[in-house]
Amino acid sequence: MNNDLLKSKIELCAEKVNDLLSQTLGKKDDKFAVLFDSCNYSLLAGGKRIRPFLVCEFYKLFSGNGEVSNGAYDLAKAVEMIHTYSLIHDDLPCMDNDDMRRGRPSNHKAFSETTALLAGDALLTYAFETISSSPYLSDSQKADATLILSKRAGIRGMVGGQQIDILSEDHPQDYETLLYMNSLKTGALIEAACLLGVCAANIKYSDSSDEYRIAAKYAKGIGIVFQLVDDILDITSTTEELGKPVNSDKENQKTTFMTFFSIDKAKEIADKLTEESKCAIKDLKNSECLSDFADYLKDRKK
Amino acid sequence: MNNDLLKSKIELCAEKVNDLLSQTLGKKDDKFAVLFDSCNYSLLAGGKRIRPFLVCEFYKLFSGNGEVSNGAYDLAKAVEMIHTYSLIHDDLPCMDNDDMRRGRPSNHKAFSETTALLAGDALLTYAFETISSSPYLSDSQKADATLILSKRAGIRGMVGGQQIDILSEDHPQDYETLLYMNSLKTGALIEAACLLGVCAANIKYSDSSDEYRIAAKYAKGIGIVFQLVDDILDITSTTEELGKPVNSDKENQKTTFMTFFSIDKAKEIADKLTEESKCAIKDLKNSECLSDFADYLKDRKK
Repeated sequence: MNNDLLKSKIELCAEKVNDLLSQTLGKKDDKFAVLFDSCNYSLLAGGKRIRPFLVCEFYKLFSGNGEVSNGAYDLAKAVEMIHTYSLIHDDLPCMDNDDMRRGRPSNHKAFSETTALLAGDALLTYAFETISSSPYLSDSQKADATLILSKRAGIRGMVGGQQIDILSEDHPQDYETLLYMNSLKTGALIEAACLLGVCAANIKYSDSSDEYRIAAKYAKGIGIVFQLVDDILDITSTTEELGKPVNSDKENQKTTFMTFFSIDKAKEIADKLTEESKCAIKDLKNSECLSDFADYLKDRKK
Repeated sequence: MNNDLLKSKIELCAEKVNDLLSQTLGKKDDKFAVLFDSCNYSLLAGGKRIRPFLVCEFYKLFSGNGEVSNGAYDLAKAVEMIHTYSLIHDDLPCMDNDDMRRGRPSNHKAFSETTALLAGDALLTYAFETISSSPYLSDSQKADATLILSKRAGIRGMVGGQQIDILSEDHPQDYETLLYMNSLKTGALIEAACLLGVCAANIKYSDSSDEYRIAAKYAKGIGIVFQLVDDILDITSTTEELGKPVNSDKENQKTTFMTFFSIDKAKEIADKLTEESKCAIKDLKNSECLSDFADYLKDRKK
């Protein structure tokens, strides 16, 4: 697949997801319209919509359908709500204390700390309401999707990774801890997205089923590469290209992959892990798009 | 049922739930043991365990079983996790800024704001993991329970109620808004507990089913009475009896039921609403315990 075709597929998916997310909270309650505004402010702030794309493409890969089902879109929305809530809470003063997000004031700067806290809680909860109220998913899919997502978003997944990250501030991490932290903080939700696509394709969830193992293996490679590329770009890119300050990791004395590797070595590892992701799906029919997407994530410039 | 027998039933249920909750998070992850400690600190801080009791008693009422099933206990745990997370986030400096909870330092005082925020997020997420990973519930029950709980805990339920409460600070509320705020902030999760009991009894969820309508009607009465009694005790009790400062509502210029009613009138309303709750279940076999429990909630002294 040529690069332009892939990019237009990614953009089309993002547009569709943006459209669905813009309607998802429904009519505002007049008594607390600000909470709806705060949720929508972050939910509709753009972003690459990488996780929804993974849900949709894994759905297509295992269902054999070229068209994404409404059930898959509901799961794509749910995982993006979890991602959005995590960004809102991550930006709060007691966490990373970031005033800006995607070129705009972060949620608590645009609204208030209180409303940002509650908007995060609301979106986290709404992810599970979205799954369980979907008219397009069976009870079995709803139960599986709730388990897949809650496990990877929670204490032994993303939230646990955030806690390790906070504990590591001002304390250099060893490589093993860095890898573990990233596998939870970033990797777990990327894995959830891939597995939710398999669930949308109506394959009963089990850790030992071939389809879920393939999706998890693919997710593992791109999950690390995603962070690795972030760390490389923080050194090699410019603020203009990246749309956010560069060299921030060094200034914040953060342990990153670049603490341990040269740029060339980091790129070599990214190549190797990308190949492992591609290898996981290579024998499957119609896996070209996800294979190219792994390269796209590795080669991204922002 | 005499009062002592009811009290011992409530205590027995609380002990069982405490025991189950103490095991629920499983083995701590050494890399972030503090997050497990923070979750357990609040989860095991005692409390009346009213919501778990409602789950268990509605299960018994509609299943006809005298023994509470393991599935019902899993739902009882889930609703208590949601309740606990809401207390942790409610105490944070950007919310009510409370340093004490149940006679001990609040979570963010015992740990840190960061860890308290993440512990709340972890418990909220773990409620849904508890439901969806239960070996004792069918997929249909898991899907229904996730919907029942997420809807009432989220933006059009408890979180929405918290937002109205915050918006009302320093702005006197009209009676209609107060009632609406309470129905969301306190009432919604009490309703969830009652409905989850019906779900545990394996009755397919539907707003129009008799069983769920009865449970919702019972919940509505006790939900308002619960707050009404809190407001009365804040005026009539002593700090020693209540275990927390009295007259705090007046000092904080909070609109409560006592802004609108005399103590006698408030008690009269509580009597009437309690009768409505009791009336909702009176034709059902073995409804005596829940009927007495409605009186117990009305007559409590703390």
